[in-house]
Amino acid sequence: MASVDVPVALLGYGTVGAAVNRLLTDSADDIERATGHRLRVVKALVRDLRKERDYPPSGGVLTSDFQEIAADPSIAVVAEVMGGVEPAGGYVLELLRSGKHVASANKQLIARRGAELFAAASSGGVQLRFEASVCAAIPVIKVLREALVVTNVHRVLGIVNGTTNFVLTEMEAGKSYDDALADAQHRGYAEADPTDDVTGADAAAKMAILATVAFNSRVDLTDVDYTGITAVDGDDVAAANELDMVIRLVGAARLVDGKFDVRVQPALVDKQHPLAKVDGAFNAVMLQGDAIREITLEGPGAGGVETASAVIADMVSVIGTMGTGFLQNDAAWRELPKLPAGDHRSPFYFRLSVADRPGALARVADELAQRDVSIARLVQLFQFPTKSDKLFASSSALQKK
Amino acid sequence: MASVDVPVALLGYGTVGAAVNRLLTDSADDIERATGHRLRVVKALVRDLRKERDYPPSGGVLTSDFQEIAADPSIAVVAEVMGGVEPAGGYVLELLRSGKHVASANKQLIARRGAELFAAASSGGVQLRFEASVCAAIPVIKVLREALVVTNVHRVLGIVNGTTNFVLTEMEAGKSYDDALADAQHRGYAEADPTDDVTGADAAAKMAILATVAFNSRVDLTDVDYTGITAVDGDDVAAANELDMVIRLVGAARLVDGKFDVRVQPALVDKQHPLAKVDGAFNAVMLQGDAIREITLEGPGAGGVETASAVIADMVSVIGTMGTGFLQNDAAWRELPKLPAGDHRSPFYFRLSVADRPGALARVADELAQRDVSIARLVQLFQFPTKSDKLFASSSALQKK
Repeated sequence: MASVDVPVALLGYGTVGAAVNRLLTDSADDIERATGHRLRVVKALVRDLRKERDYPPSGGVLTSDFQEIAADPSIAVVAEVMGGVEPAGGYVLELLRSGKHVASANKQLIARRGAELFAAASSGGVQLRFEASVCAAIPVIKVLREALVVTNVHRVLGIVNGTTNFVLTEMEAGKSYDDALADAQHRGYAEADPTDDVTGADAAAKMAILATVAFNSRVDLTDVDYTGITAVDGDDVAAANELDMVIRLVGAARLVDGKFDVRVQPALVDKQHPLAKVDGAFNAVMLQGDAIREITLEGPGAGGVETASAVIADMVSVIGTMGTGFLQNDAAWRELPKLPAGDHRSPFYFRLSVADRPGALARVADELAQRDVSIARLVQLFQFPTKSDKLFASSSALQKK
Repeated sequence: MASVDVPVALLGYGTVGAAVNRLLTDSADDIERATGHRLRVVKALVRDLRKERDYPPSGGVLTSDFQEIAADPSIAVVAEVMGGVEPAGGYVLELLRSGKHVASANKQLIARRGAELFAAASSGGVQLRFEASVCAAIPVIKVLREALVVTNVHRVLGIVNGTTNFVLTEMEAGKSYDDALADAQHRGYAEADPTDDVTGADAAAKMAILATVAFNSRVDLTDVDYTGITAVDGDDVAAANELDMVIRLVGAARLVDGKFDVRVQPALVDKQHPLAKVDGAFNAVMLQGDAIREITLEGPGAGGVETASAVIADMVSVIGTMGTGFLQNDAAWRELPKLPAGDHRSPFYFRLSVADRPGALARVADELAQRDVSIARLVQLFQFPTKSDKLFASSSALQKK
């Protein structure tokens, strides 16, 4: 098949957009060998044409007029790397409806407006790909949609936020929460405003997308119960260590009797569990399914070049499957109900401070028994300065296999 | 796009073939949703038509005549799940040349005759896919070829043989090599004749395929230097433990100054390194590249259903990309030289028994220094019954990052 020049456009030309342009240019030969096509950025939408930029594109590529992209019939594929729900959402909708394929790196957009976007892709007869919206360069969406087609994935466990994983790892080494977070910001893992990371909102959006693809049913961001790590303190980290566990912000999506349950919570994880071993700011996703038992993907979950690599993989995949009908559909072809909150059963960890008096422990055990709670493991720590006991009753949500 | 019935054929109907037929039947709706096509097994080549089989196919499907498949123009895609280099190789060549796409699960065939097979695919204008030939359900070939197109992967590290990983893990728990191997056979991880596993031949074939795809240059099985685990004994395992390391059969493929170096060897691996933590019979592959830093895929590297899942993923991917020119080429488009054996530099471990005499250690250190070998770590163990010292001089090939 003869090489065909494919003009593409970018929405946004920040760190990720510039990296997409640079990788497309530097790797044009590799892409042509894989696809038979040369991808070339002909337009990039920005707000300020005069801003200084890394890897500035050639003259005439930057534009502040979205219609120069939307109305150009030669552009078949657009990468959305601008972020934010609006105006990105409106742009992507218009592009899809008008028959342009879109690769988006925007997790909030996909998690919040997925149904609408996929309907637009369907009406336009084009693909909406979104690998870069979840865990950057880790190709978990491609693996779920293309490699695990026949495997009925019923559980997804993930460390999908690098900032919080780094903070919790550093707290194990003795740092306070505040110092660990400051260090994460210093290293560029956390934003100046880390709210979305530490509250679990970022991980929740990623888990909504992963669950939607894995279970083929729309899981809205509002369907995800999430708690961040702001309430985790040094005593919890020490208590987990006493139990041979670590605390990690774990995203867990399960199918239970045909109902989905998706949550993000700090969880006690056995030190031998693979998720306990995810390095610093890395991400990992475990997929459990019928035909595969368990497949784990681990790698950098953030970064400009890493994200750009995923965006390009999506563009290449669009080019490689155009016209075949492959994956043109919304991944969410069925509607499963959400598991009612009261039906979620799980081991829990809690920590109590009790007075050092005979019978204190018996009293606690008795109260729990009356509420039909059984104790899996209990660790009692004496803190002499205050004469109070610390009591940990726990079982981990993630025991070693 | 309207649903299209796609007749497919199997070469072989053993454990994997039966699982392919069952999964294609059970998951026909899932596949149709992803591809717009229904895949249906219409022919399966077997030697003995009367043998009792799991999941027996419907009447008329089994045949002992290869030409019933080769000469049937309605069959566009064939899965080769019969194993062995011949007659499988001749069959696959004929199918490719006559314009039928092939998905093969046969690592020896792909590793030994890849160049010839891919040339045939190219002349027939069809795809040869081979995900199932390496690490069963772990989608490492798809990830390398489709997700990491622009990332210049320059190093692949893998635990790609589950039998030896299980044996080495059990030896850490105190089992002898023989007992651990017998246990692996009992659990079905090792064949009755485990030669290919324990000599490293199986891992070498997988590393040849992985290196070929990662480096885009044919790495022949004869280019892979391999050593198995038959010489590893309990003393080595104990010595590794003294150094806070474990022994693992590691496949390592590297690009060094434009030359490839691919080897499989027992290696000392830091206990904190991800490859030290691969569970029992699982496999893991780490891919290091420019744009991705490092991505690790872990999962079951063997098993009938797991392998069948990968075969079907390949068939689905062929259907999804037919006619677009995508990945129709041989992955090996360039010819890189092999790194000369003498140019391979690496830390090494060795163990010496020396007499318990003053000066023994100094003498060893002196001899090493004269040969320009520096010592990274040295552990001296006294064994009182024999009055001999055990001396470990070592550094690991795989330090913690």
